[in-house]
Parts: sequence; structure tokens; C-alpha cells
Amino acid sequence: MDVRAAVAFEAKKPLSIETVKLEGPKAGEVLIEIKATGVCHTDAYTLSGLDSEGKFPCILGHEGAGVVVDIGPGVTSVKKGDHVIPLYTPECRQCDYCLSRKTNLCQSIRITQGAGQMPDGTSRFKCRGETVWHYMGTSTFANFTVLPEIAVAKIRPDAPFEKVCYIGCGVTTGIGAVVYTARVQAGANVVVFGLGGIGLNVIQGARMVGADRIIGVDINPSRKAMAEKFGMTHFVNPKDMKDEELVPHLVELTKGGADFSFECIGNTKTMRQALECCHKGWGESIIIGVAPSGAEISTRPFQLVTGRVWKGSAFGGARGRSDVPQIVDWYMEGKINIDDLITHVMPLEKINDAFDLMHKGESIRSVVTF
Amino acid sequence: MDVRAAVAFEAKKPLSIETVKLEGPKAGEVLIEIKATGVCHTDAYTLSGLDSEGKFPCILGHEGAGVVVDIGPGVTSVKKGDHVIPLYTPECRQCDYCLSRKTNLCQSIRITQGAGQMPDGTSRFKCRGETVWHYMGTSTFANFTVLPEIAVAKIRPDAPFEKVCYIGCGVTTGIGAVVYTARVQAGANVVVFGLGGIGLNVIQGARMVGADRIIGVDINPSRKAMAEKFGMTHFVNPKDMKDEELVPHLVELTKGGADFSFECIGNTKTMRQALECCHKGWGESIIIGVAPSGAEISTRPFQLVTGRVWKGSAFGGARGRSDVPQIVDWYMEGKINIDDLITHVMPLEKINDAFDLMHKGESIRSVVTF
Repeated sequence: MDVRAAVAFEAKKPLSIETVKLEGPKAGEVLIEIKATGVCHTDAYTLSGLDSEGKFPCILGHEGAGVVVDIGPGVTSVKKGDHVIPLYTPECRQCDYCLSRKTNLCQSIRITQGAGQMPDGTSRFKCRGETVWHYMGTSTFANFTVLPEIAVAKIRPDAPFEKVCYIGCGVTTGIGAVVYTARVQAGANVVVFGLGGIGLNVIQGARMVGADRIIGVDINPSRKAMAEKFGMTHFVNPKDMKDEELVPHLVELTKGGADFSFECIGNTKTMRQALECCHKGWGESIIIGVAPSGAEISTRPFQLVTGRVWKGSAFGGARGRSDVPQIVDWYMEGKINIDDLITHVMPLEKINDAFDLMHKGESIRSVVTF
Repeated sequence: MDVRAAVAFEAKKPLSIETVKLEGPKAGEVLIEIKATGVCHTDAYTLSGLDSEGKFPCILGHEGAGVVVDIGPGVTSVKKGDHVIPLYTPECRQCDYCLSRKTNLCQSIRITQGAGQMPDGTSRFKCRGETVWHYMGTSTFANFTVLPEIAVAKIRPDAPFEKVCYIGCGVTTGIGAVVYTARVQAGANVVVFGLGGIGLNVIQGARMVGADRIIGVDINPSRKAMAEKFGMTHFVNPKDMKDEELVPHLVELTKGGADFSFECIGNTKTMRQALECCHKGWGESIIIGVAPSGAEISTRPFQLVTGRVWKGSAFGGARGRSDVPQIVDWYMEGKINIDDLITHVMPLEKINDAFDLMHKGESIRSVVTF
């Protein structure tokens, strides 16, 4: 079938709106009509050419929502008409990782997904006679896309696509890190480094679970008002003090150190600060941000021996099919705010504007509707 | 009263056997007759002059066992005649740390203890008219010592002093890291870096809780036989391969990576290897070894974002008064082996020999009996 897609023919070039040929779903796969998709930093990272797994030409996009329009042989968990969110972290419920009960990082299709292929090792997209690769197993910058059944989360039908598509990545990454990775308890003191989309979702996750002090750290003071709306209780601008004063100031604000800290920037220096502002004895620091390729984190081992814990979170520690539908419910019940995070909505033809707005820091999230 | 003690008058000098004046216990304190004490790397570290908290002259020693011979006013938890193990990590059960339920690092007397004093800010030792400082709050290289009530663990009276004194530090540090810090489960695959006293105790802790593969890593092949006796299933000598082959080899031996790894050396390079040999998704690496002052650990944050956890352990995560008596029981019930770890026993007059044996790598643990 013919589909309309934004194709990335090569790195560092704008996306091109094209008519692309899409093969239908094979065994265990589903055809999804994408109704809305967010544009995320990770798409921009791959488009920049820095992503070693990036493979061109491809159809980017990994934060979508849509409707099942066809299913391949053997598909049992969803049917035509179901509303779904595509999952770049699938949940097969059969691999060693899924069965471990200790991680959300299902590995069942990791290799083909990383190679831009469906699980059978092929691509289903063709443009101008040439193969176009899948991206993160999702390729949501197309109005139709094919996905393995294990990589779609079935959600309630009354959830608006142009809002809940953000749960496909950013919302889950931030809220999940609080709820699933860190398991923040009520009364905890929390420090959040970076008040972009992920940081704001960490903040509202912390508020949802009843955290006490929620301290936001950002060098951009214009983030303060929005972060307060999402639950931040104290704002700290590192530019207001000397470098070496930041950690002691955060320790003082948290009465001895953070019970949990979250790094939502991707900067190895702030990752260290996030660890070292944690409470002696039990503070846990969770890395969410993606650091530049080759960058390393460091600290004195004494920080860990005296009880701090350093960990990370991918897709918020959420199991896609099990946990994403619940986050959709939280949105529909008003427990979390997505509307205010979606600052721009545009048609597919304007998708390059979404990248521009992101690079200028003018958007929190732009959503493309089809 | 007059007591017999090995005094460290200055760094890098042998200990000197002296008659020392000891003041009796004040309120909340107890007088202990020390019957046996281990000689530990930490004593040697302080004696080397590298310990920034080291304060001379002092009476070293922190791995003892003995009998309560007098109690000060208000002492209720122990009485004359009770057998006890002195605790350099006390357990007041009242400070924020004890009440957090999340750490064993009681802070109630941390400041005075670090300054070589009893909680009232004084020393009780005098030698040749001069103040002699306490060490780690315990000073077990004396046949009598004074301790706060909160810094003694009451143990069963039938436990032999010259064996269970080792539970005052090394045994608990190793076994506790497995049981309390990591909470290793039956069936887990474990990698242990460094097969000295701590590493051997980690190994027997892992065996006790039913770990599956227990892999020991050491550059000294003569450690293999002893480690196997304690439960090691596979031995790896990093000298048998190229540097960059060690981690992949350990990942292969553990069928995907260690569920838990323990660094028992104090080397920041092996700390990184210990983290990176952990299983993607859930492997936890626990730092036990003490690195040289100023040394830093590093890794790529991707290691943590993909699910590995980096933490540390001090005194095995054990709460001194609550957990140490149980470890004594485990020894008495034959669940753990201490006898084979105590390679040398000597009188106080020969204590400098214990340091020599340690530096030459000829002892696992030397014990001084009074």
C-alpha cells in the first residue's frame, strides 16, 4: 500500500515528505494507522548522524499512537480497531529478560530492531524503488506502519491520540523512572537535574507519589514557572553560585541529601553532581539523560561505599504492554498532566518545524497529527 | 587502671607494647576485657600515615572480642560477664540513620569517633603522662578498653573469642555484603574480585545463600585452592588473558553477566571491570575495597542506563548489635568457616609480626590473644 511518510534520506538533511510503499503485516505483526506522533530529541540525535546505529534512508519517529487496521497470521493480543501505542521497547513476555522480573529491557527483537529491520530481517518500506529502513522498530513518521504484535500496547479507546502519543516515550521515561525504576516513596526528597520534557515528567511523577521536597535544577530560569505548575517546590539555578557550591546547597535544601535524584540532561558532570547530592546511607541517583558517545561518568568510590546507589533508567523501567496502558489511565483520570507539555501541534508537512523549535528550545513537545 | 596495650606513637613505626592508664566507663559506657583481636588491613592503612583521620599516638585495633567487666551509669543492654564484640559501626537505634531502616551507618557518635575520642570528647587512655587516642571507637590492641554501650554486640558465651573476633570486621564485611547489601538470591551467578580475607568471606556468603556459579578473580593462582574450599566454582586469573578480554570472559562464564559482583581489592580499575561484567538489565556491582585517597571510578553511563547498578558496602551493611550476634550463631552452627581463615595466632608482644605477615601476603588473618 501507499503511505505518506517523512523520510530521512541522509543525516543532517531535513526530512522529505514522500509517498512510500508499505508491505502488509506478516505472521505476528500488525498494521497500524498512526494518528499522531511526538518529535523527540532521540529522533534529532539520529538525524544528526551521531547515532552509531543510525541507518539511512529511514523513517524516524518512535512516539506515536494509532489504530490497528490489519493483523497478520497468529496475532491474538490485539484486533482490528484497537487503539495502540507503538513500543520501541517491546515486551515479549517470553525472553530471559522479560521472565527475569527484574528489567523492562526485552531483548527478543533487539538485533533486527537495531538494524532497522522487522524481526524477519527485512524492511517493509520502499521509496523510489529503494529500501527505506525502520527506526527503533516503530517509524511513526508515517501514517501507516508495521509493528510486531509484541511492540504495541493496547490502550483505552477514549484517549486522545494527539496527547497520549507522548506516553510512547517522554512521559513514560520520566514518570516511569520515578515509579518503576526508583520506586520513590511518599515523603521522599527529590532533586531533578534538567527541566525539559523528561525533567517535568519526573517532577509530576514525584508529585503523584507524594514526594515532599521536589527540587528542580536548571540553568534556564524561564523553566521555573512551568516546573512549579508540575509540582516543583524549590528551584536552583547553578549559575547563581560557584560550581563547588551546588552540591552542598542541594544537600542543605534536602536536609542531608536527596533520597532520589534524577539526571535528565545527558551531561556527565551533572550526573556526578546528581549522585553526590544524594543522602549518605541510602540516596539513589538515576541517570535518564543520554550522554555524548564516549563520555564517562566518575566519582570517588567512597560515595558508593557510604551508601549512595548509582543506577539508570531506560523507558522509565516500564514494561510496554503492561505499564503503558496504566499511564494512559493516569492521564485520563487527571493524575498526570500532558496537555501543558504539548506546546505545538502541526501536520506532517510541517515536521521539520518541530525539529527547529526543539533546537531553539522553544517547544517542550511538538506533536504531528495525520 | 593499668592496661597492657600496643601503642602506635607515630605513623610508619612499629607498635610499642606499653603499660597504659585507662579511665573507667562513664555514663552509657562499658569496660571490656579484650580476649582476642584480629589485625586488619585498615589498622595497617592508618599506621602507614595515609589515613587522613589517623591521629597519633593511638591504640589501633577494631576486630576484637571480649567480656564486659564493668558498666557505667545507665547501661541497660549488657551486664558484667556478657561476652561481646566491639563495633566500629555502632547501632544507637535512635538516630535518623538507624531509624531510616535503609542503612547500617549509625551516625550518633561519628564525629567524636573520627576524632579518636569517646562520645564526651575525651580520651580515656594515657601513656607516659600523654593522651593516647582511641581508634575507630574500639582500640582493641589493649587488654582492656572502654566503649559506648551502643558499640558492643552481645554474643553467645560459648563462642571462642580467638575465632569470633574476626566477625568484628572481616567476616561481617564479606558475608554481610552478600546477605545484607546485595541480598544475593539462590541461583544467582556471582563474580568476586580479590581472594583475600574479604573475598573469601564473600565467597562463603554466596555459597551459604545458594548462589549458583561463584567466580573468583585474582592474579595470584595460589589463592585458588583456598577459595574453592570456601565455595568458589570457577577461578579466573586476569594474567592469563589480555586486559580487554577479562570482562567478556566473565560475561561468558556467567552466561550473560554476573547477577552480582563484588570488588574486594580497592583498585578503581577492577571496580570498573566488576561493574561491566554485570548482566545487562539487572546486574549489581558492590564495592567493598577501599581505594587510595583521591582515586576515582569511571564508566560509560550507558552501563547504568542499560540496567546495571553500582553500589557500595561498609561493614557488610550489617547493623552491629542486631546482625553480628546472628553471624556468630552461623559460625557456631557450622554454616560459615572462620577457622581456616585464621592462619596465625600470637601474643600481644608479637603483634608487629602480624603486620609483617600481612604485608608479605603470607597470612589471611592473624589474631592476637591476650
